[in-house]
Amino acid sequence: MKLAIDEAWKFQLLTYPNPAVGAVVVKNGAILSIEAHRKAGEAHAEVNALKAAYLKENPNSRLKMISAAHEIHEYLLNNCVDFFESCSIYVTLEPCNHIGKTPSCAQLIEKLKLKKVFIGSLDPNKEASGGKERLITSNIDVELNIMKKECDELLLPFLKWQKNTFIFYKTAQTINGTIDGGYISSNQALAYVHTLRDKIDLLAIGGNTVRTDRPTLDTRFIQGNNPDVFIYSEKKIFDKTIPLFQIKDRKVIISENLFTLLDYKFVMIEGAYNLLEAIIDKIDYLVLLISPKMKMGKNILSNFECEFEIVHENFIGNEKIVFLKKLNKNH
Amino acid sequence: MKLAIDEAWKFQLLTYPNPAVGAVVVKNGAILSIEAHRKAGEAHAEVNALKAAYLKENPNSRLKMISAAHEIHEYLLNNCVDFFESCSIYVTLEPCNHIGKTPSCAQLIEKLKLKKVFIGSLDPNKEASGGKERLITSNIDVELNIMKKECDELLLPFLKWQKNTFIFYKTAQTINGTIDGGYISSNQALAYVHTLRDKIDLLAIGGNTVRTDRPTLDTRFIQGNNPDVFIYSEKKIFDKTIPLFQIKDRKVIISENLFTLLDYKFVMIEGAYNLLEAIIDKIDYLVLLISPKMKMGKNILSNFECEFEIVHENFIGNEKIVFLKKLNKNH
Repeated sequence: MKLAIDEAWKFQLLTYPNPAVGAVVVKNGAILSIEAHRKAGEAHAEVNALKAAYLKENPNSRLKMISAAHEIHEYLLNNCVDFFESCSIYVTLEPCNHIGKTPSCAQLIEKLKLKKVFIGSLDPNKEASGGKERLITSNIDVELNIMKKECDELLLPFLKWQKNTFIFYKTAQTINGTIDGGYISSNQALAYVHTLRDKIDLLAIGGNTVRTDRPTLDTRFIQGNNPDVFIYSEKKIFDKTIPLFQIKDRKVIISENLFTLLDYKFVMIEGAYNLLEAIIDKIDYLVLLISPKMKMGKNILSNFECEFEIVHENFIGNEKIVFLKKLNKNH
Repeated sequence: MKLAIDEAWKFQLLTYPNPAVGAVVVKNGAILSIEAHRKAGEAHAEVNALKAAYLKENPNSRLKMISAAHEIHEYLLNNCVDFFESCSIYVTLEPCNHIGKTPSCAQLIEKLKLKKVFIGSLDPNKEASGGKERLITSNIDVELNIMKKECDELLLPFLKWQKNTFIFYKTAQTINGTIDGGYISSNQALAYVHTLRDKIDLLAIGGNTVRTDRPTLDTRFIQGNNPDVFIYSEKKIFDKTIPLFQIKDRKVIISENLFTLLDYKFVMIEGAYNLLEAIIDKIDYLVLLISPKMKMGKNILSNFECEFEIVHENFIGNEKIVFLKKLNKNH
């Protein structure tokens, strides 16, 4: 389950508006596949894991060429039932019971007759839930609450998207806290930031950062969608030759009313820490990219104190990405 | 092997003058134990792992009460030979072939007739080497170079101790780079720092830090040995009521000659970054304790630029410990 959770985190925030979910298929104590849901509109984690597990033992299968979710479902159901009877699956979230364009994941697992299903969190989404009941009714062995706390943690952005707004603060620094002095992040980390920008509804940034850095705030590394921009500024006049204003089909809001952010469902904040200070109580995650170098330049000057919990961390190349959650002292 | 490596890192620097070594015992695809060498004078990693593996399946064995290395050897050899014939062991460093107060680890594994031995690094110590030859001669299946790069990385302090001086820089900061403004680290992290101080030969610190912080630089959290202190300072006059001068049997050197550090084998540097700047080329590791909070206070002001590679990281409670190695651009 730990492997399924770590795989899901690689696509955390990138599956918007879907939850980040990971799945691992095992057979006779050996791990056959570790997969995740990667992107809304693509196959669910279970489907990716079942496909990869079958391919692990049948590398020349025609399945290799198939990527659309409904086609994978169809192939597995028509060609691979026997294969999965000795397999178990670990999945961070209860398999969906929602039958839309494809059969539900619970129904797929039921028909493939998997030996056992280990589930982390139960599906909080009423429309898709009922997966575990379907599996149990079909006499599939189901074990619930495996690493439940860690699996529940994965769902935070999804739960916020469903109800209101998920806001995260992204910043890049060196190990000694430098935030300026030229590019800090590698191209690989920048490509990741552009992938985030492609997913979000709104990018918020401080007015001083816009005036000083003259940023573009686009997604040129990945040719993605360019988000709307909210500039947090008392002064409303900006030099319109700053590249961010040149992006086609982009709405730019210049305002000091932070409630505007709540009109959007998925907001990333970039830039200086004075904006973080103003909005710290509304931040769901702080996403920190840390480059393992010391660099001269301005350090992060925070005018407030705040404690965090590290909810996940990983590498992007040789740099770190750390997901932090504000620690609520009243807990 | 990854698990053996991570376990060894938990005791990195604490095994001085021995190398950090980890070992994992598996049986029929299941992990029975994950252990490390913890402290010079105590059992080697293999012995700890073999003991824990036997206890895992025989929890009430008298072996539980035995901790001296030679007694564990004796117990295993007299009571457990059959048990290990279906076991394999992963060990980050070639089992020693050096017979002193106890039989060598290679001889123990040979007599217990383990099925297979997976080795990371070969023993660079001529006196103890020859373990793999002994195992191969006894028809034990041996596989070498498993995660060799990562296992070799574990040996860096040991290799330096053998030849000359191992120097590491320890510092504590918040995620936003603050290094002062009261205690940064938790008591658990402070206890770890005191454990490091107990092992080292010499603690080096900047004169300004001594004058400003008036530190004790002792090991009161763990009642350990208090290291000698080197104060890097041009001005030689210090207020002798500063607590560090009150520690019994401690030698305090006040000097600006950094070559003095090379008279010792194991040196930790604490304190401000100006000393780091002066000695950066002699540093083997930067050990960074990072507390996941933002705090007002002085940020780290580095007057130089330097790139690092993260060689290992772990948690101490909810804080991070990160081992960094200076990246040599000429590589």
